[in-house]
Amino acid sequence: MKAITVKKPGGAEQLQVVEYDKPIPRDGELLIRVEAAAVNRTDIMNRESSSGYLDNPILGVEVAGIVEEAGAGAKIAVGTRVMGLVNGGGYAEYAVMPDDRAMVIPENLSFEEAAAVPEVFLTAYQTLFWLGQLRKGETVLIHAGGSGVGTAAIQLAKQIGQAKVITTAGSKEKLDYCRLLGADILINYKEQNFNEEVLAATDNQGVELILDFIGASYWSKNLSSIKVDGRWVLIGILGGAEVEKVNLMELMSKRIQLTGTLLTPRSDEYKAALTSEFSSKTLELFESNKLRPIVDHVFSFDEIKEAHEHMENNKNIGKIIVKVN
Amino acid sequence: MKAITVKKPGGAEQLQVVEYDKPIPRDGELLIRVEAAAVNRTDIMNRESSSGYLDNPILGVEVAGIVEEAGAGAKIAVGTRVMGLVNGGGYAEYAVMPDDRAMVIPENLSFEEAAAVPEVFLTAYQTLFWLGQLRKGETVLIHAGGSGVGTAAIQLAKQIGQAKVITTAGSKEKLDYCRLLGADILINYKEQNFNEEVLAATDNQGVELILDFIGASYWSKNLSSIKVDGRWVLIGILGGAEVEKVNLMELMSKRIQLTGTLLTPRSDEYKAALTSEFSSKTLELFESNKLRPIVDHVFSFDEIKEAHEHMENNKNIGKIIVKVN
Repeated sequence: MKAITVKKPGGAEQLQVVEYDKPIPRDGELLIRVEAAAVNRTDIMNRESSSGYLDNPILGVEVAGIVEEAGAGAKIAVGTRVMGLVNGGGYAEYAVMPDDRAMVIPENLSFEEAAAVPEVFLTAYQTLFWLGQLRKGETVLIHAGGSGVGTAAIQLAKQIGQAKVITTAGSKEKLDYCRLLGADILINYKEQNFNEEVLAATDNQGVELILDFIGASYWSKNLSSIKVDGRWVLIGILGGAEVEKVNLMELMSKRIQLTGTLLTPRSDEYKAALTSEFSSKTLELFESNKLRPIVDHVFSFDEIKEAHEHMENNKNIGKIIVKVN
Repeated sequence: MKAITVKKPGGAEQLQVVEYDKPIPRDGELLIRVEAAAVNRTDIMNRESSSGYLDNPILGVEVAGIVEEAGAGAKIAVGTRVMGLVNGGGYAEYAVMPDDRAMVIPENLSFEEAAAVPEVFLTAYQTLFWLGQLRKGETVLIHAGGSGVGTAAIQLAKQIGQAKVITTAGSKEKLDYCRLLGADILINYKEQNFNEEVLAATDNQGVELILDFIGASYWSKNLSSIKVDGRWVLIGILGGAEVEKVNLMELMSKRIQLTGTLLTPRSDEYKAALTSEFSSKTLELFESNKLRPIVDHVFSFDEIKEAHEHMENNKNIGKIIVKVN
């Protein structure tokens, strides 16, 4: 089968399409004929450090496709359309997936749309509800509203969390899109100090929850944007990892809960439990179009270099998809 | 009545015994004839910035004494021996306390012992169980094991949490005392790198929970001592507030939950709920001497300067008490 691996650690030019053995599903696993895969920042990090994920030399952590073969004990029938997270190996014509991590694709979604669901919606769900404990009526600040996780988080916070959503992005085009997805307050971080806008929008109280994909460059402004007893979930470092001078007394006097997280390295059991809860809460919302996978651009399998570069340029609104079959 | 206030912001020499009006209990409040009060770091911080707590010019946030008068609706009878947190005003012959924050003193405890209970045991309880979510069989690292909160936390983690306790302190005398209180692993931070000892004691996994009273100077070693998915509660900055460089990726890759907290500024409702749960879980353990208030030294009312200096010298094991009546 065709698959995408990395020649040596480096830029997008190191990606290559190679011939690879079709994987064999073990007990409880599904072999999936991949129709579409999505590009994630974790793929770029793996590319730069040369390894695939979990010793899998093939990149890619999420796919949508059709069950081709089911290992012993797997509960999903051959021929079913499924989407979900894989332990690497997603950029390929075939991939294996633990059965308890496969979600049946709602009928109204194409494979390209379905491939845009797992990583960002599961991450957003985990972050908002499991780690962030978002409660009805609270206000959440979602940075990078136009990103894959941002577009998923805005929708989930409105549709499931019934929260007030404040979002930041760097262009009018992205902010207009966030408004369509349901965001209540829109802040262009290039033209406004987002913390001043957040305080103005919250009667100087700040927000109960921050979803932070940015990290270091937003540290001080996030501190001033968060309410006493607020939760702050750190899920990305697009603005750098290293904060100079952190004053711990500020975390204490505001009684902040700061939680760092990454989804990809979590255990199979965790991903299965998250997938199961997420599916039960969202399937109807996808079927009724209240939740929408946001696809920015679909690249062909041979355009993988362009797909990675597109993400690295931060030009996308929503997900970048690679069409496989 | 006699009361202790601050002349102007500064050192212990600024403390003065003055004559003050006896407070009048409002609805739901108790007037307490104070027998003993305890010294806390928050008193020292208030002394340095000249204000008492919550506009109360009289220092002191916890007392033990006898109910002298009950405001309308208060449910505790005149003559009852009680201990608990007050909103300032503890260093005085009389103090008022919201009725729902008063705990009946177990018969086997003296007033001096009872005054050693509220602040440190409530803080330790809140930190271990409400914020730290300590579960049976987990390992907790308790810094400053000889401090007031440290001695309370070691006992609560063993007696209620059924946890494995690793503690640090700066002298053999303090560590021996921690062992008596139930600590399993003892580390002299002046002679050993505590993170190396923690990793050695946990099969290189690290601890599930850290109670951190130290802050900046322990930052890196705490990071290396904590397990993946660990919780880290920041309740003091004895080692400074400012961390020079924080790498957020380390918080993300270990998926750490870092929570800052302070007890004194929390709401009346919070303190009432904490007091109520704490009382129901611990009364029998105090009565059977499985939990012990740890009193380092009892000073007379006129020795308040010496009492503050004793705390500032970090020489105490357990609480510093001021005998009032």
